[in-house]
Amino acid sequence: MADLTAGIIVIGNEILSGKVTDSNSPFMAQKLREHGVELRRVVTIPDEIDLIAREAREFHEQFDHVFTSGGVGPTHDDVTIEGIARGLGRRVIRHPRLEEGIRGFVKGEVNEAQLKMAEVPEGAVLVEDGNLGFPTILIENIFVLPGIPEILRRKFDALGPRFASEPYHLKVIYTRWNESAIAAMLNQTMLEFPELLLGSYPKIDNPDYRVKLTIESKDEGYAQRAFKRLLGLLTEEAIVRTE
Amino acid sequence: MADLTAGIIVIGNEILSGKVTDSNSPFMAQKLREHGVELRRVVTIPDEIDLIAREAREFHEQFDHVFTSGGVGPTHDDVTIEGIARGLGRRVIRHPRLEEGIRGFVKGEVNEAQLKMAEVPEGAVLVEDGNLGFPTILIENIFVLPGIPEILRRKFDALGPRFASEPYHLKVIYTRWNESAIAAMLNQTMLEFPELLLGSYPKIDNPDYRVKLTIESKDEGYAQRAFKRLLGLLTEEAIVRTE
Repeated sequence: MADLTAGIIVIGNEILSGKVTDSNSPFMAQKLREHGVELRRVVTIPDEIDLIAREAREFHEQFDHVFTSGGVGPTHDDVTIEGIARGLGRRVIRHPRLEEGIRGFVKGEVNEAQLKMAEVPEGAVLVEDGNLGFPTILIENIFVLPGIPEILRRKFDALGPRFASEPYHLKVIYTRWNESAIAAMLNQTMLEFPELLLGSYPKIDNPDYRVKLTIESKDEGYAQRAFKRLLGLLTEEAIVRTE
Repeated sequence: MADLTAGIIVIGNEILSGKVTDSNSPFMAQKLREHGVELRRVVTIPDEIDLIAREAREFHEQFDHVFTSGGVGPTHDDVTIEGIARGLGRRVIRHPRLEEGIRGFVKGEVNEAQLKMAEVPEGAVLVEDGNLGFPTILIENIFVLPGIPEILRRKFDALGPRFASEPYHLKVIYTRWNESAIAAMLNQTMLEFPELLLGSYPKIDNPDYRVKLTIESKDEGYAQRAFKRLLGLLTEEAIVRTE
């Protein structure tokens, strides 16, 4: 089975200017991995229509699933919908069902800013979830998510079953040797298991271990064989423990 | 004065797979802002030579300063140097001064993995800092930084004076109204102050305020005038406090 891929577009001047730390893409990265989806690219860009349009078009073409975070509120700098629409060559329209929902929610007269929240790229689908109140906008393969972490998380979790794939199988080795000492063994393992996802993560000033090695594959037997081979190459002397 | 711009390329499968949360780009974003540099783009990509090459070339052309984070160790997945070299159309060479330093540092025989750490794109400059031990590799406008946060931070702080620009001037307004209620006032302010950097950040479930507004410019008087105008539009009723 070909792996499903994903890309994340984080939209927000507040992140680029260091005012806010993006916790949405790390959250989605973890969740996508748990769902067996290969996240290939995360980009953070300003609230500018042309830049959003360019990324939306590229990500739409390159990845199976695309997630945007941010830029969907009622204010002047919320231009994500317009950017995505431009990137996909579509008009921005006011979605009747969203407008109806907003008019029902707002007490008294509805203003222009509130109605902006009903705008979608033409052809967008509303993904409903009983618990979320406001549906998630899906246009082609792009899920449009809000920047507020609490809401993004709830929406993303609700969407999970839509894009889940086969899981990765992970084995871990902690070594007491440093990377330079084990590099040749890692290279040998990669030669014999070219499809392996092999990660090497040094930890400085750590009394417990020097390098954490991650051995991964969607094929459980392959991961297991590579794990055993690497254990043999490293020898017991180098190994603190395995997981 | 034209603003200095920057881009950050984060390289690492461990970030895309959710194993490690990138703290380097948030750190650099904050520091760049303090230095008055406009961060325009952050991208996170896998440890793959072609992808690194493509980003290195693009960022090199688009921004004044480029910073890469990760992929510079001695193991199989450390391909940042090779990627940048390819992106800039240069060969990878072993830098005599780095090789000398490594041979001096290592006790006993030096292996291939250790010597890999002496590789640079041809034409690279070594930026020395008395305290850092290992110099920072600078090729054209690309600073090549390691992924380990403790080391990256020390290096980045040492490099600061090389790329500092004029500072931004920031004023903040906290409102008790929500974004829909103030959107028209923000739009009016942007009409009158088109060069203003105006941010609007809602906070949900917060007893203190509903929206934090940031008013910024490199021109202190401009920021001050826009701040006053927006205060007037909002009226006292809407304002919790200012900073």
